[in-house]
Amino acid sequence: MAAPIQYFELPNFTFEDGTTLPVAKLAYLDINPSGSKVALIPTCFRGKLHATLTFATGALRDYRIIVVALFGNGESSSPSNHEGATPFPKLLDYRDCVRAQHELLTKNLGVQTIDLMAGFSMAGQCTYYWAATHPDMVRNAVMICSSARTSKHNRQFLEGPRAALENSVDYAGGDGGAAAATMGKHEAPRGVHAFAKAYSAWLTSADWFEQELWRDLGYASYEEWDTDSTGPRYAGWYPNDLLAKLRMWQRGDVTVCDPSAAPSSSSDSTAVADTLSKIKARVLLMPSRTDQYFRWEASERELKYLQRGTLVVIPSVWGHLAGSGISPTDVAWMDQQIHKFIQEA
Amino acid sequence: MAAPIQYFELPNFTFEDGTTLPVAKLAYLDINPSGSKVALIPTCFRGKLHATLTFATGALRDYRIIVVALFGNGESSSPSNHEGATPFPKLLDYRDCVRAQHELLTKNLGVQTIDLMAGFSMAGQCTYYWAATHPDMVRNAVMICSSARTSKHNRQFLEGPRAALENSVDYAGGDGGAAAATMGKHEAPRGVHAFAKAYSAWLTSADWFEQELWRDLGYASYEEWDTDSTGPRYAGWYPNDLLAKLRMWQRGDVTVCDPSAAPSSSSDSTAVADTLSKIKARVLLMPSRTDQYFRWEASERELKYLQRGTLVVIPSVWGHLAGSGISPTDVAWMDQQIHKFIQEA
Repeated sequence: MAAPIQYFELPNFTFEDGTTLPVAKLAYLDINPSGSKVALIPTCFRGKLHATLTFATGALRDYRIIVVALFGNGESSSPSNHEGATPFPKLLDYRDCVRAQHELLTKNLGVQTIDLMAGFSMAGQCTYYWAATHPDMVRNAVMICSSARTSKHNRQFLEGPRAALENSVDYAGGDGGAAAATMGKHEAPRGVHAFAKAYSAWLTSADWFEQELWRDLGYASYEEWDTDSTGPRYAGWYPNDLLAKLRMWQRGDVTVCDPSAAPSSSSDSTAVADTLSKIKARVLLMPSRTDQYFRWEASERELKYLQRGTLVVIPSVWGHLAGSGISPTDVAWMDQQIHKFIQEA
Repeated sequence: MAAPIQYFELPNFTFEDGTTLPVAKLAYLDINPSGSKVALIPTCFRGKLHATLTFATGALRDYRIIVVALFGNGESSSPSNHEGATPFPKLLDYRDCVRAQHELLTKNLGVQTIDLMAGFSMAGQCTYYWAATHPDMVRNAVMICSSARTSKHNRQFLEGPRAALENSVDYAGGDGGAAAATMGKHEAPRGVHAFAKAYSAWLTSADWFEQELWRDLGYASYEEWDTDSTGPRYAGWYPNDLLAKLRMWQRGDVTVCDPSAAPSSSSDSTAVADTLSKIKARVLLMPSRTDQYFRWEASERELKYLQRGTLVVIPSVWGHLAGSGISPTDVAWMDQQIHKFIQEA
């Protein structure tokens, strides 16, 4: 039976952008609460709690696994579930997520040590922020198809879906979007469809298309896959939630966690080196060989700066989605790597 | 002094989609008309005649070079310059371009043999169509960052800009786009901007972003490059021209030129093998090492089927744009390869 979604309320929670909400809310799962060790796993960009890959029946079967929803995912505090007079924060920041999750663990769940934190994609970035801000609390960290800083290439790819949605006839219609942005539950099916179209070729890989692996997902044809994955598969996702998460992702940069790091600039990897070198956790970097935006080459560069880092590249043609849990072969491979990583501790 | 744009009129021209226009028009340049050999170079996706890379001062300096605009580029017959009662064709096809260009060469310019045809991107696809439909007329062909059939990955990437534009507030506004599509000169700045955003991260490469090569183009910052390349750089491009060209590209498949080829289907490369094996021209395939959608791996597969093919991979981080002429180093490298290719004939 799936663990039920629980909610933790944080009164008068102040976000990095300066907004204080009377109550911020974290949604989470507490899987195997009697487990002797603790794992923390945040949700990814388009991730809901119950769809998150947890390794709960594999490498983490003895762990108490806390799966926690990032702000903006529609389960934790998000534009779409926001109520009250105070407007929802204009910008979300991974530091907001880390601070709220820290409260959840230490004040609500009695957890003082995270034996293992794992995160895919945006959740991997959140994991980096955790390891950088709480070096003594995070013992082991697994970053799956992720990066310490969002590359300019990644940021620019995200400009596509963002612009497609923000300029769409049903999101921006009428008032140039000013009203839409303040209406959390505002729907825009054509805008979300355009968003999905602009996103879809990035998710997997050229090889994935070449090998027609939509068949592995049960689609008889390319057209059937395209129609479903840029339509019904976005059911339940509100434009302003997608945009809030996307902006947090675009601004992802772990060096903001380290006030003493060299000034952060895109042309300067010194700041990243500074920040990563202070991380005490053992780190397993697990990029995918064919990821088009969280590239393994970036993980390889990060590895140099980590005190106790290991890099293994998922040998997959599923691109970024290799880390999502959609491909059973890749899940088994990752599970084995995490198992080994834990054994070698 | 730049060669002037000339126009060739084709009365009662019937397009593959069944539309007959009273007059179709080809725009072209006739560079060095007294040259002893003839080269034909079509424009690319977002290509205008005078911006087309011709190698006229290098490898092709002794050639008469005919640069010809594809239908839909705004210079040859296009939605944006269409007039009269007959609606512009719903679909363009490379075969329309080839047939019209054949008329131009044989009936207007007195050309019976194309010593060398070269094309970048969509123009490379047009070159494939030429070589397949006129095997005795095309002697040498150079395909730069292109492919014989548009891959599903490429097609899906194009769905992003297409959907961004078609669902935009100023293209689709009011009547769901039905009217916009019939108004050739209809403008939609927000839609074109969203199109440009969804296109922009594909054009170069992750390495290009990593190395901040916008500086080579004179931009001081990423933001400055982004603003210009997704705004002012699209000046003069009408939504319906972009969409007409894009649809032709998405449907690119040289096997349609070969009625006896095995039935074409995405899962079957037999048809491509059949068609390519009948091409008599010497062929130089010149993909870019970092092209994200016209990948060198696809060119490598095509090479196997060509009777007289050669493959050289542009060692560039400019991605697809390596073949566009934007990078002087890449232009010099390609010029040298074409020179060698001609010498070895």
